[in-house]
Amino acid sequence: MKLLYHPDCSQISLAGVLYALGDPVRLQVVQQLAADGELTCNAFDCDVAKSTMSHHFKILRESGVIRSRKEGTQHVNSLRQDELQELFPGLLDAVLQSSACGAVTG
Amino acid sequence: MKLLYHPDCSQISLAGVLYALGDPVRLQVVQQLAADGELTCNAFDCDVAKSTMSHHFKILRESGVIRSRKEGTQHVNSLRQDELQELFPGLLDAVLQSSACGAVTG
Repeated sequence: MKLLYHPDCSQISLAGVLYALGDPVRLQVVQQLAADGELTCNAFDCDVAKSTMSHHFKILRESGVIRSRKEGTQHVNSLRQDELQELFPGLLDAVLQSSACGAVTG
Repeated sequence: MKLLYHPDCSQISLAGVLYALGDPVRLQVVQQLAADGELTCNAFDCDVAKSTMSHHFKILRESGVIRSRKEGTQHVNSLRQDELQELFPGLLDAVLQSSACGAVTG
């Protein structure tokens, strides 16, 4: 089974996290995960190709924003909210608050 | 004289701002501007080529993170801190606080 790479907290960089969040589709994913907790990749209602979505999930995972685990043939994803809060206090909250106000697009 | 494009507040997107901040050099520029107020492009002690720096300034300016004005042959840059705070409350503060803790690199 292919192991999914997740950075340790010491490997998570601010620039990497901001870059990962700096895309409307990835922001939508993060917002939905914050609202719903755990979600499979299929649960997201984004109007993009499956391969593009996989790429977005990879960027979110490898930057340390989300954790993904295999469950059967699916990936179940969740936000690394506590770890991010510890590393970058207030950052994710500010992003979620701003994106909830409809400022995601573009 | 070539006019420098700056987006109106209504054109500034969260994703665009996060993308602009999602780079170690650009984070360093933003941190230095937050500390010093206005700075010319030459004032930054980043170990990158001049053309690369110009590109970084363009991304920061066109995303709405900084304002640049011509003064003679120089560009004088400043953070659009108040406007960003209005649009995305707490975001820039959280970024500056985290980057000040040395989490910029990578």
